[in-house]
This record gives sequence, C-alpha cells and structure tokens, in this order.
Amino acid sequence: MIIVLKPEASEENQERIKKDIESFGLKVWVSRGEFRTIMGVIGDETPLRDMPLSLYPGVEKVIPILKPYRLVDREHKGEDTIITLSTGTAIGGKEIVVMAGPCSVENRESTLKIARSVKKAGAKALRGGAFKPRTSPYSFQGLGMEGLKILKEAREETGLAVVTEVTDPRNVGLISEYADILQIGARNMHNYDLLKEVGKVRKPVLLKRGLSSTVKEWLLAAEYILNQGNNEVMFCERGIRTFEDSTRFTLDISAVPLLKKTSHLPVIVDPSHAAGRKDLIPAISKAAIASGADGLLIEVHFDPLQALSDALQTITIAEFSQLMEELRALASVLGRKL
Amino acid sequence: MIIVLKPEASEENQERIKKDIESFGLKVWVSRGEFRTIMGVIGDETPLRDMPLSLYPGVEKVIPILKPYRLVDREHKGEDTIITLSTGTAIGGKEIVVMAGPCSVENRESTLKIARSVKKAGAKALRGGAFKPRTSPYSFQGLGMEGLKILKEAREETGLAVVTEVTDPRNVGLISEYADILQIGARNMHNYDLLKEVGKVRKPVLLKRGLSSTVKEWLLAAEYILNQGNNEVMFCERGIRTFEDSTRFTLDISAVPLLKKTSHLPVIVDPSHAAGRKDLIPAISKAAIASGADGLLIEVHFDPLQALSDALQTITIAEFSQLMEELRALASVLGRKL
Amino acid sequence: MIIVLKPEASEENQERIKKDIESFGLKVWVSRGEFRTIMGVIGDETPLRDMPLSLYPGVEKVIPILKPYRLVDREHKGEDTIITLSTGTAIGGKEIVVMAGPCSVENRESTLKIARSVKKAGAKALRGGAFKPRTSPYSFQGLGMEGLKILKEAREETGLAVVTEVTDPRNVGLISEYADILQIGARNMHNYDLLKEVGKVRKPVLLKRGLSSTVKEWLLAAEYILNQGNNEVMFCERGIRTFEDSTRFTLDISAVPLLKKTSHLPVIVDPSHAAGRKDLIPAISKAAIASGADGLLIEVHFDPLQALSDALQTITIAEFSQLMEELRALASVLGRKL
Amino acid sequence: MIIVLKPEASEENQERIKKDIESFGLKVWVSRGEFRTIMGVIGDETPLRDMPLSLYPGVEKVIPILKPYRLVDREHKGEDTIITLSTGTAIGGKEIVVMAGPCSVENRESTLKIARSVKKAGAKALRGGAFKPRTSPYSFQGLGMEGLKILKEAREETGLAVVTEVTDPRNVGLISEYADILQIGARNMHNYDLLKEVGKVRKPVLLKRGLSSTVKEWLLAAEYILNQGNNEVMFCERGIRTFEDSTRFTLDISAVPLLKKTSHLPVIVDPSHAAGRKDLIPAISKAAIASGADGLLIEVHFDPLQALSDALQTITIAEFSQLMEELRALASVLGRKL
Repeated sequence: MIIVLKPEASEENQERIKKDIESFGLKVWVSRGEFRTIMGVIGDETPLRDMPLSLYPGVEKVIPILKPYRLVDREHKGEDTIITLSTGTAIGGKEIVVMAGPCSVENRESTLKIARSVKKAGAKALRGGAFKPRTSPYSFQGLGMEGLKILKEAREETGLAVVTEVTDPRNVGLISEYADILQIGARNMHNYDLLKEVGKVRKPVLLKRGLSSTVKEWLLAAEYILNQGNNEVMFCERGIRTFEDSTRFTLDISAVPLLKKTSHLPVIVDPSHAAGRKDLIPAISKAAIASGADGLLIEVHFDPLQALSDALQTITIAEFSQLMEELRALASVLGRKL
Repeated sequence: MIIVLKPEASEENQERIKKDIESFGLKVWVSRGEFRTIMGVIGDETPLRDMPLSLYPGVEKVIPILKPYRLVDREHKGEDTIITLSTGTAIGGKEIVVMAGPCSVENRESTLKIARSVKKAGAKALRGGAFKPRTSPYSFQGLGMEGLKILKEAREETGLAVVTEVTDPRNVGLISEYADILQIGARNMHNYDLLKEVGKVRKPVLLKRGLSSTVKEWLLAAEYILNQGNNEVMFCERGIRTFEDSTRFTLDISAVPLLKKTSHLPVIVDPSHAAGRKDLIPAISKAAIASGADGLLIEVHFDPLQALSDALQTITIAEFSQLMEELRALASVLGRKL
Repeated sequence: MIIVLKPEASEENQERIKKDIESFGLKVWVSRGEFRTIMGVIGDETPLRDMPLSLYPGVEKVIPILKPYRLVDREHKGEDTIITLSTGTAIGGKEIVVMAGPCSVENRESTLKIARSVKKAGAKALRGGAFKPRTSPYSFQGLGMEGLKILKEAREETGLAVVTEVTDPRNVGLISEYADILQIGARNMHNYDLLKEVGKVRKPVLLKRGLSSTVKEWLLAAEYILNQGNNEVMFCERGIRTFEDSTRFTLDISAVPLLKKTSHLPVIVDPSHAAGRKDLIPAISKAAIASGADGLLIEVHFDPLQALSDALQTITIAEFSQLMEELRALASVLGRKL
Repeated sequence: MIIVLKPEASEENQERIKKDIESFGLKVWVSRGEFRTIMGVIGDETPLRDMPLSLYPGVEKVIPILKPYRLVDREHKGEDTIITLSTGTAIGGKEIVVMAGPCSVENRESTLKIARSVKKAGAKALRGGAFKPRTSPYSFQGLGMEGLKILKEAREETGLAVVTEVTDPRNVGLISEYADILQIGARNMHNYDLLKEVGKVRKPVLLKRGLSSTVKEWLLAAEYILNQGNNEVMFCERGIRTFEDSTRFTLDISAVPLLKKTSHLPVIVDPSHAAGRKDLIPAISKAAIASGADGLLIEVHFDPLQALSDALQTITIAEFSQLMEELRALASVLGRKL
C-alpha cells in the first residue's frame, strides 16, 4: 500500500499514519520527493483494507498494491482448475463443453424432446430454469419444484448434466439434489447471502457476471464461494450493460482471455443473453471459442415460437446442430476438442 | 402494440399473426403503407408480453405501446403517496425528511451518540446497517441481530425512526420487528425473491436503485412490491455505474423529477454512496433538494476515522449540522420545510 | 511515479529501469517489501509519461502520482478565474450567468424576438448555433455565415453577449469576429486541432464535456487551450452517455462541485441537452445552481413547435421567465445573485 | 411513423397533427384503441424528422418506423461492397486483410524495418500515424508531413498499402496524396466537417467507431461520407467506453456480425486499442476473425520499448508472425483466406 501525502502535510501527520499502521504489526517506509512525500507499507496490507487512510490529515491518496482476492488468483494456484461433473464431463481442460436447452423448463414433453436433440448434436449439459427471476412481476416465473423433477428425468434419460439457476438461499439445498451445476444469475452475482450458501455445498457453481460488474468484482464474488470451501466455480460471461442498445447487452469478449490469465478457474460464454437476438448467436459463439472460452451456454428450443421466455434469443435445434458442426472444426484448429 | 412487417411479408404471415393475437380475445387492425405494412393491437396488450411476436415469419419489429408497470404509475394513482411512519414523520408530503447515521452499526455507545446528535441537528430517521453486503468477503460484515437491538434502543431513546437494510428473504420477518423502514440495497434491487418477501409485510420500504438499472426497471422492481400488497415504497437514487471514476457512482439527478412525474411514490436521494467522497456531499445534497427530492439518506459519524465501513464518504456531525442549516434555508425558498 | 515489480523480477531488471529513468536526470528509490519490491521516481515525472515502463521486464504495474494537467489545476492557480465579457458580464464570480436562446439561428425575426425576450427575463448572453453539427446528414445544418450576422445584430440591439459554436478550425477566426464566447461542442471536445486553434485567439471559450469523457480528460482538453495561451475557458457539463435512456444523456451533477474544487475555471450547466425533454429542465436548472454552477445554458424559443432543431428540449419564453424568478430566489439563499 | 396520443387528447389535437403532416404531401391513418388512439404516417417519413411532433398538444410519444440511414443499408444495396486498393488488395471479399505497423511513424529506419517485417509475415497494409490526436497536450504529437513521406517510401519499397489518420479537414487533400486509406479516428467519428471532407475525395476511408457511439450513430457517420459521393468506407470496431477498467475499452464483438447484416460495407477490428494491453491481442484477434471481420488493424513494433506512443498495446514482430500463422489456420476453417 502506497500513501501519497499532500504538499502541505506535516511531520505530525506522518507520525500519526505511521503509528496507526504499525499498530497492525506492519512496517512503514517514507520517501521524500521534490513534489510529494510518499509512504509505503511493507507486509500484508489486508488488515488495512477497512482503515480509512485517505481521511487522515495530510493524505492525498492511498493506492493499494496487492490484489483484493487471493483464492481465485492464478498466483495462488498456477494450474488450471478442471471441474469434473458427476456425468464424467470435465470443464476447464482440453474439451470445450456446450450446455444447451430452453430458457425455462416449460413441461415434461418439450424438455425431454430438447434434451434428446441437444445431446445428439453434441451438448454435454442441459440448461433450463425452474426458478426464474423476471424483470416484470407479470411475466412467467418458472415451474419451481415441478421443473426440477423434469430436469432430473431428462438427466436420467440422456446422461446430460443439468445446469439450473438458484435465486433464493433457502433453495440451495433442494436444488443441489437435482442439479449438477448451480447457476448464479447475473442479477444475483452481488447477492452475498446466496454466494455464501452455494459456497457451503459441494456442487460446481456457474457464476454469471453481474450486468455492471467489473472483472475485479466478479473475481471477488467467486472468492466469496471459494472462501466457504467450494472450489468448483466457473465464470460465465454474458454481456455487460452499456449504452449500445442494438444488442441486449455488450459481450465483453476481452474478459475471456483476461480471466484465463488472472484466474485458474474455467470460463464459459453465454452468447444468447449477450445478444438478445438469435441472428448473432453463431458468430458470437465462434468468437467465444476463438478467444479461449472453455464452454458455451446456449438457449435452444425445437420451436422458439412456443418458448415461454427469451424466445427472441433462442435458436432452433437445426441451427444448433449446424453451429456445433462449425464449432467442432474451429476447436480442432485451436488445439481443443468438442 | 404495433407490429411492423418486413417489406417481403406475405398475406399468410399476416393471417397467422392476426389469428394468434385474436386467440387472446384482442382485436387487430392493419395499415398498408408505401414502405411498410403495420399491424396494431386494440386492447390490453399484457397477455401478449411473453409472446415472441418478433420471431413470427414476416415480422420486422414489435413496439409495445402501453407501459409495463401499472400500480406505481401516476396514471393509476394521481395524488402523491404519503408514507406516515410509526414515529409520526410523513414522507412524500411538504416536509423534506433527512435520514442520517453511520454506514454500519458498530457498537452501542457510538450508535447512541450519533443518534442523539443527528436528532438534534434535525434528522427524522436513523440509518445504520446491521446486515452488510460487502464486495469483499474479507471486509466487516455487520453485527447482525446484535445491531438490530442497538438500533431499537436508539429508536426508543431518541424517537427517531430506524432505517436498516434487509439482504436475505429469511430475515424479513425478524428485521420488520426492529425497523421502521426496510431498506433494499442497490445490489438487491433485482433480487425478486427478496422483493416479494418485503411485499408481504406491512412496513415502508426504501428501494435503492440498482447500479445499472434503468428508471423503467426500477419502477418494475417497485411494482413487484406493490403487487404483493405493500403500497408504501419510496425510491432512493444513489448513483449509477458509468465510465466516470472520479466519483464512486454517477448520481442521476434527472431521475428525481422524472420519477416524481411518472410515479406517485416518494423519492429520496443518497449523496454519500453516489459521491463516495465526503467533500462533494453538501453540494449534491443541495442539488437533490432543489431537484425536488422528498428526503436524503446521509452517512454521518462523530469520527469517520473510526467508522468500520464507508468512512471516506461519511461526514462529521459538525458538517452535518452545518449542512442541515443550509438545507433548511433552501427548503423554505422551494416551498417546503425541513 | 511508482513502479511495482513482479515477485520474480531480477536485480538486472531493476538496474535497467533505474538506469533508463536516471537518463532523464531523475532519481529513483527502491523499497523491498515482503510481497513486492517497489521503485519510485523523485522529481517531475512528465518526461516519463510516454515511456512504456509497464513493458520493462519484471514490471507488474506503473502508477503515476502527479496529475497529468497543470495550468487548469487549482494547485497551480488558487483563486477563481473570472472571465469578463466585452459586454461587461463577469462569469465565475458572485453572479450566476444565464445564457439562453434557440438551438439554431433560424431567421432574423425569430432570433431578435427571442433575444429581446430572454434579455427581459434576465439572461446575460444569447445562445444560438450558426454552424450545426448534426448526427444525420439529412437534418438542418445551420445558416452558417448568415446566422453569424443575425447574431451580431441581436447583440447590437440587446447588449447580450453572443455564444455560438465553432466546429471547424478553418472558421475560428471568422466566428471570433462575431461571437463573445466560442462554444466547443461535446462532439468536438477531443478535436485537438480545433482546441489548439481556439487556444490561439483571445476569446472566452465554453468547452462542453464530451459524451463519454471523464472529468480528467475534460481537464486535459482545457489544458490544450490554456497551453496555447488562452486562459479564458469555462467548462459546460451537458450530460454523459450512459445506459439510461429515459433522458437523452445523464447529467453528472457531481462534476460541478468536483470541477470547482479541482480547477479555478468557471463551470456552466446545460440542462437542455442533458435532459432532452423540456419537462425536466426547471428541476435540473435548480439542481445545477444549488450544486454551485456559475451559470446555465438553456434552449428557449417563443414557439418550440417552430424550432428547426432540438424542439423537444426547448422551453417557451413564459416558462423561461418563470424559471428565472425561481432561480433568483434560490441564488439569494446560496449567497449569489442572478 | 407512429404517433401515440394521450388518453385525454382531443379531436382538435388530432386534426392539427393530421393537417400539419398532410402539408408535406403524406397520408395519415388513425386507429382508436381501448386505451390509446394511434396515428400513422403513410409514405417517406424523412421530411418529418425535424418536426417536433412529440410537442404537439395531445401527443404521448412518436415512434419512427423507417431507418434514419439509407445508402449504407443492406436494403439499399444487397451485395457486399468490396474495396480494391491501388495495391490490388481487396477488402470485404474472401480475403481477410491485416493492416499492421507502429502507432506513430517515429523515423525512417524504424518504419521501413517494421514495414518489411509485417509484409513478410503476411500483412497487406502498413498502419502508422503522422498526425496524432493525443489526450494530453504534453504527449508526442506526431511527425506530420515528414511522417507522410516516410510512409510513402515504405509503400514504394514494400508494396504495402498505407493507412494513416486524418484529423483536420485542412489536411485531407494533402494526406490523400500519400495514403491508400484515410483513417478517421474514434475521437473524430462525430467531426462532421471532417466526414464531409473525406466524402469529397476518392480514397477509401477507414471509419473508427466513436468511443461512445451506438452502431446506429456509426452507420449515420458513414452515411455522411457516402452522401458526399465516396462509397468506399470500411468500419473499424475499436472498443467502446464502459465502466470496465481492466481493459482500455470494451471491444463490442457483437457489432461485427450486426454490421455485416445491416450494411454492405466491410468491417475491420482493431484489437490493440480495444485491449490497451498486448497480452490479450492474440485472443481478441482470433475472436474478431471468428465473428466475421474482414480484416484487422494491429499495432506492431520490433521493439515496443522504443515506441513513442501506445507501447503497452504493441506486439513484437515475432508475436505478430506467430499470430498470423494462427489466424491463417483459423481463416481456412472459416472458408476465408489470409
């Protein structure tokens, strides 16, 4: 931690800062420059994080040097984390894992039909929401418990892993019994009570990026989960909110290689929510793979016109199968497989 | 709802759209223009909201005409909603209500000391967090239950109403027994399970704007609460996330008059979180009052250097008293009182 | 300037950095911490600004300590800059200066009529565009030279100062002969050729904030002008681009007190472009004054329905006169006059 | 154009709107719904664009139906525009065109050395700035005329086309004599005087996206150029400004397929400015190609430590050659060549 003093800071100001920092057992050095005096802290600055050093008399600004996260950091763990699902699929290794399915679980028949089709096209996991967070209270809110049972049946029949969203800390235990991957949605990335709860179970977590979260805040959200003992977290980039309104969100493609460098955890991309329109999904999916993503999360339906939610960004099974072909060719050139 | 057809749309395309909309008991009109054919829906378009009309063959775009919210709309209720707290303070009327106090409840002594001081300066409510959502898992997380008891004691001694945050749907009942106003924080504005839960109790709710929520989404979040039967909601503008980094967030001052025109619910402004730095708080507070806000939520501490969180944006009691004087003069010119 | 080294940086890495910095005649200190080694530069870091220190082997990050601007800084000049126009009006002092008029100069009659009316209501300057930058090539592009002559006539008749926009470096000389204040529009804040050109004349400049400029970049744009010898620059906050779409831009009210603290130059607010809708203009104008602005720039027309551009955000003369009354009362409470 | 009336709009209100629109020779239809009356305009709504219909008494909102641009629209011209440079390279066809070189032209030796190397690695054009727009007036501003001559020499020796930036309308003629492609930088995308000027010459234009421009505004900026008679415009996505600060800008990868669908003009991607850090450039370049871009604009230097600007985002020649290999493999899988 670096503390820059104001030109007018007094000796007394310096002494107070020094004394208070040293009370945490840390050492302080001082460098007097032509324009500014600078103080630095030697040692682990974590205990100082909540200390309002900027408010101390004579302080101009405080600059943290160490990163605020630790467990998710590649400096903490050098090798890639590979998450092996109970179905045997490994996420974060050589294989690119595609998770596909309807936005919401609508009924038994349609879910099973979609599950069989995406499995055939090469998907390794079935996505589908049973508990849906919706912007409007007047929109379809999901089948709840009923939906979980349908997902479980689809899992048993097809061997696909199941990814489904958890929105309420009270439901974490229940959903863990049905799902292979617990999804934390974008609107809940900052829901710390929920993060702590999924940190206590032993289920892989797919952590979507908050609509307006920086990569650093996203890493800290994952840190909440790892800090509770659950190390199997994968990031899912799904677009951030910007001024551009011709797509639903702006997919931050640079976040993919950035996360791969910064953290050891796998990175998934959700082109469907980012685009909000089906015509861009193939192009964005290819870009995601080319940028180094470990997997994709795609909304697929045999008849998007019948989908109860997110129909505009849902591709058909024929389009999905075609896309999988193209992604397979791409993966091979990139030294991966799909 | 208006449906714009593609130049190449066929008669058959039109017929299908017409038939499917009419199956909801609605009427459809058609206007053939030189460049585009347009279809319109007569009647309440709510049942069509989840219908993926844009995906129908031949459709170029779909434009909703009616607003997606109803209960919060000034068209639904013309007169201002005035929320009377159990302490007798009325929010949303002629009086400008200032809520002040520490970011977090730290201990009994400091909380009581601050409560007495802000009361003396003219505050009508005491703010203070017992359950704190923090970006880092390594930051102070609040006193929990212990904090609630301290707030209650401060309330009893001073007569100030208590505003405190609820983050977990499991705690809504408990916190309702201690607080006069339930605060929903910015990071939970989209936490629908929590919104529904506070909609079920009969306590005023202070609904902070999400970091990246449009005014329309914020109105819909309030609609969730009113839709459950709780009509006592006040909005709290606290800044949105933008590219500007010299302040913590960008206070959207225009949202104040916009909400007052669009909705009948009161509007509060939180200058502390918006600025993230204490030196701007007096200027922003005055701007908020001048723009028509019904109240302010301000972080105050007798010694910000001792505050366990948000110290940088916390003003001292002396600064607060001085600000209250200035706001009082301003209020009188604006035809209000404080 | 602080240089943080990677944990694995070698002695050799350090030596190279030291040597290259010292070649600029600067001194370097080194502090070895438990986790990181830090190097610091003593002296004026300006010559190092274009040096890619972050790329040097062993460097983790580089943190500048000194501000990148100098002439606009309040540290450089402590007292407020007061700009006195040739009409005698002083901007940046006790008086709040209101500049009003049509978006574009449309014709002689309407311009004179508006000029007389805003003068009567208390405006001190007439705004009006002769050269208009428009998003669409199919929109009205301004009267050009013809417009300048009309503005001059209005100036002579009413005694109002004239504010008009300059968009092309080739026109700076010409427009300087007609205008009292040269306006640099938001879309040209980064047009450095234009900034340099207005820096060479001796006319006050009203520098609008770029749609997506940080306050720091805005200060640097002003620095370009002062650096050429023209010290009479005033900032004009007119809203930044964010995700919120219920207003045209998001007025950054906090930028007003922030600029007043950081710089000695006057600050004006343009509520018309920020809101993009006339119903919010009175509330935003009051907020601007309350936050400490030195003036306002408002679009006024006797019949907005006839305005050739920006009609939606233009208030009538009656509305303007009423607003001026309210602002006058507000100014007096704030210790200023209008 | 659709006009939605307020519930309380009168017959008289309707009549006035109808009459004024019909004065442009257009027809109007009216549809009375249960909640709202809607009026529509039949015919080309262009003449109505500057008409402030929203201000008419009784109007709730006005919704344009037709797009504001025409010449750049794929509806106007179905087949892809292919721009053939004087060097024979075709942009917008099957080939992916890579333009590489230093940020600024620094001196004759280094420029020629870089030119030869990028040519050898497969680049088809040499990028390099002679007139540099810089955020700080204290940064290196380019070699100007001297730089143009160096670029010309490099062009003659290597056969590479030359891409260089034009920032001042007064220099368009001059630079056109030296460059094969005129670059309009992000900060000038809204500089309409400059757009008109490059519209008058017969040189291909590379139009970078403004930092905070929507795709629609970008299309309109290109429309300015085409409207002057210059049809050879290519878009260049280089990242938009968002709240994310771990990269310099946020590359909007979805804009690539979106533009390819909406317009017939070629699309280039600049990964260097988007990322602002060299370690992410290979991944982003691959993503760009996979998303359908027609080319790349990359900053390359044999020794980034010696680069006078943008060194942090400049890759070495070895890194560039390696990247070209990888891109070549990728292109072949995508049915393109490089």
